[in-house]
Amino acid sequence: MVNLEMIESATRRIRGEIYVSPLVHSKSLSAICGNEIYLKLDNLQMTGSFKERGALNRILTLTPVESARGVVAASAGNHGQAVAYHATRRGIRAQIWMPRYTPLVKLSATRAYGGDVVLHGNSYDEAFEGAVAQDATFVHAFDDEAVIAGQGSLGLEMLDQNPDLDLIVTSIGGGGLASGVACAAKGRKPSIEVIGVQTARLPSMVAALAAGDPVRIPAASTLADGIAVRKSGRFTVPLVREFVDRVVTVDEGDIATAILYLLESEKTLAEGAGAIGVAAVMRHLTGHKGKRIGVIVSGGNLDVTLLSRIIEQGMVRDGRRLRVRVTLPDYPGALEGLAALIARAGANIVETLHNRAHYGVSLTETAIDITMETRGPDHVAELLAALSHAAYEYSLVE
Amino acid sequence: MVNLEMIESATRRIRGEIYVSPLVHSKSLSAICGNEIYLKLDNLQMTGSFKERGALNRILTLTPVESARGVVAASAGNHGQAVAYHATRRGIRAQIWMPRYTPLVKLSATRAYGGDVVLHGNSYDEAFEGAVAQDATFVHAFDDEAVIAGQGSLGLEMLDQNPDLDLIVTSIGGGGLASGVACAAKGRKPSIEVIGVQTARLPSMVAALAAGDPVRIPAASTLADGIAVRKSGRFTVPLVREFVDRVVTVDEGDIATAILYLLESEKTLAEGAGAIGVAAVMRHLTGHKGKRIGVIVSGGNLDVTLLSRIIEQGMVRDGRRLRVRVTLPDYPGALEGLAALIARAGANIVETLHNRAHYGVSLTETAIDITMETRGPDHVAELLAALSHAAYEYSLVE
Repeated sequence: MVNLEMIESATRRIRGEIYVSPLVHSKSLSAICGNEIYLKLDNLQMTGSFKERGALNRILTLTPVESARGVVAASAGNHGQAVAYHATRRGIRAQIWMPRYTPLVKLSATRAYGGDVVLHGNSYDEAFEGAVAQDATFVHAFDDEAVIAGQGSLGLEMLDQNPDLDLIVTSIGGGGLASGVACAAKGRKPSIEVIGVQTARLPSMVAALAAGDPVRIPAASTLADGIAVRKSGRFTVPLVREFVDRVVTVDEGDIATAILYLLESEKTLAEGAGAIGVAAVMRHLTGHKGKRIGVIVSGGNLDVTLLSRIIEQGMVRDGRRLRVRVTLPDYPGALEGLAALIARAGANIVETLHNRAHYGVSLTETAIDITMETRGPDHVAELLAALSHAAYEYSLVE
Repeated sequence: MVNLEMIESATRRIRGEIYVSPLVHSKSLSAICGNEIYLKLDNLQMTGSFKERGALNRILTLTPVESARGVVAASAGNHGQAVAYHATRRGIRAQIWMPRYTPLVKLSATRAYGGDVVLHGNSYDEAFEGAVAQDATFVHAFDDEAVIAGQGSLGLEMLDQNPDLDLIVTSIGGGGLASGVACAAKGRKPSIEVIGVQTARLPSMVAALAAGDPVRIPAASTLADGIAVRKSGRFTVPLVREFVDRVVTVDEGDIATAILYLLESEKTLAEGAGAIGVAAVMRHLTGHKGKRIGVIVSGGNLDVTLLSRIIEQGMVRDGRRLRVRVTLPDYPGALEGLAALIARAGANIVETLHNRAHYGVSLTETAIDITMETRGPDHVAELLAALSHAAYEYSLVE
């Protein structure tokens, strides 16, 4: 079982090759949640996530024979990039197996770090089966003691940067980060509390803790693809049971809100799995007031086209954007009256889409989708009330 | 004229109230441009830009009578937020005058910092005229010696963080930041070079230096709205002439590319004016190799809906997204053949839009807009060649 000494030697081993990412105090997040919040920005690692810590520790403990065989990993994301980068820098061949549907951007990034990408199968599980069958040293993304010990370095680093932390919040996928960090933090400071966060779409660690052993749960899609793991690890579950005080879950909307909060207020890009700790804090799931809480922002590899969709949806959710479909009589001037009403209500029209042929309107009417910038939920309510009052027929779009 | 002593005392005065933002080395940007690049992340200030430095120095040097009258500023952006935040914290009333068309998000942010927002006129110039006519102490966004001295603190901070810098790259709008930083840096280290960057859409400092005096240039819209200044300052032009070695310009596409680079590779959000120094470095406008270059990322208040559009356009420009309009015969199976060709070419279809009635196609044909994820310019070229080879009629969209 991984222990503090293993984590301390991993930390010494990888030092100098891993960026000591900043632990920054957030005034606005502290105000939102009534605790002093410190963000550990491991999204600023070279390949964009904490995964380098564990991958590098594993690579640095390879025997000469293992190195000569090259390494192989299964990953469509951060672990693959971390292995590709650190193996290639040391002249070790790295094969990264990915499912066939992997987004091009992840494939290109892994290749850019020197990884030899193999597309195989229709799911992560199939890519995984292909990878372990290779004649090369398999580097597991989480269920490996050297990997767990490497991830633990993040916990020691946080306590070096702020020994007064009362609580650490970490994401949980397979459990490598959480078990490493919790083991490290509890070993160094037994009074500290550690909370793990999963997406409610894939609560595999919650299921494992309930069952007493890793269990495979059904697949589901999530914004937090970096922690979309269906089955926890044999090494990680006992560590999480011993060192993590509580595992909580948040939903997809919470994750999207946290991504947008980090971008707009902290000016930092986090991916779903990276923002999930902040999501838990914003939802007051830590259950404290006035504590010093360190929240791990574990990764920043968010596909920008996905970000673009998150932005659009987030605007709607926060009442900063409203799209309504309004039925209008089909004659000149009809739009003018509607536009005047919207202008009086103080909303800014950003897009209109006319459509005569669809939306089930009659032949003498037209339907228009109007997208507006609004000031928040109260403003949206005002605007809709004004539409109703003027007897417009409308429905909300999306 | 502002001098090093004034900047040093401004720096002492504002210390403790201004975040000492990190100066971080960027491995990937260094590799791209053949110099060692250090990013000064002043987008991480509380209100999202360097403007707090100058505004706070001005506010801290108010006489009791001036404080009692309250302050007034004209700004649709960062300066307004900076004045609102630091005045309100000290119990000084702050009126911020903005043109009527100001985006709601900027208006809300300024109000949230405690500013009393007045919407007036159809342009910045009209809001400005309204603001200076008030019975309150006017705080100019750049043409004020206390403001310039406050901005200069950024230059001293960079040299404290890395005394070995050979060159500093700064944005130029009205010239407050550039003149303060250049005066500070040259005063502290005479051998250092300072390069200013403007958008080619609004090169007001270039025009002022050519004319020998501030001249008003025509209005133009730009992604770098934070430096969209039509006329440089009386105080700033002489300082820029004396201390800034060169002023270069970049175009809108360069700015968008730099915003995306900072987001995807550095995981940091910069607005157009904040990313413009990085744009200059990426375009190799510094004209050196192997130098240590400090680049100021001056602000991060980018409207996320604008970001969303920048992302879409950036994908197209980089060949990571392609939209083509293809003319198809209007019978079953026509789309299948096209989809098969695209699949063989390895592109991923993300959106399709059928349209029979428009696009000037004949009655037996249909036009389809297909949006695809692609791997880069070479991949786009391959794909278009495959379409031509199969005798599809197509055109590029956007």
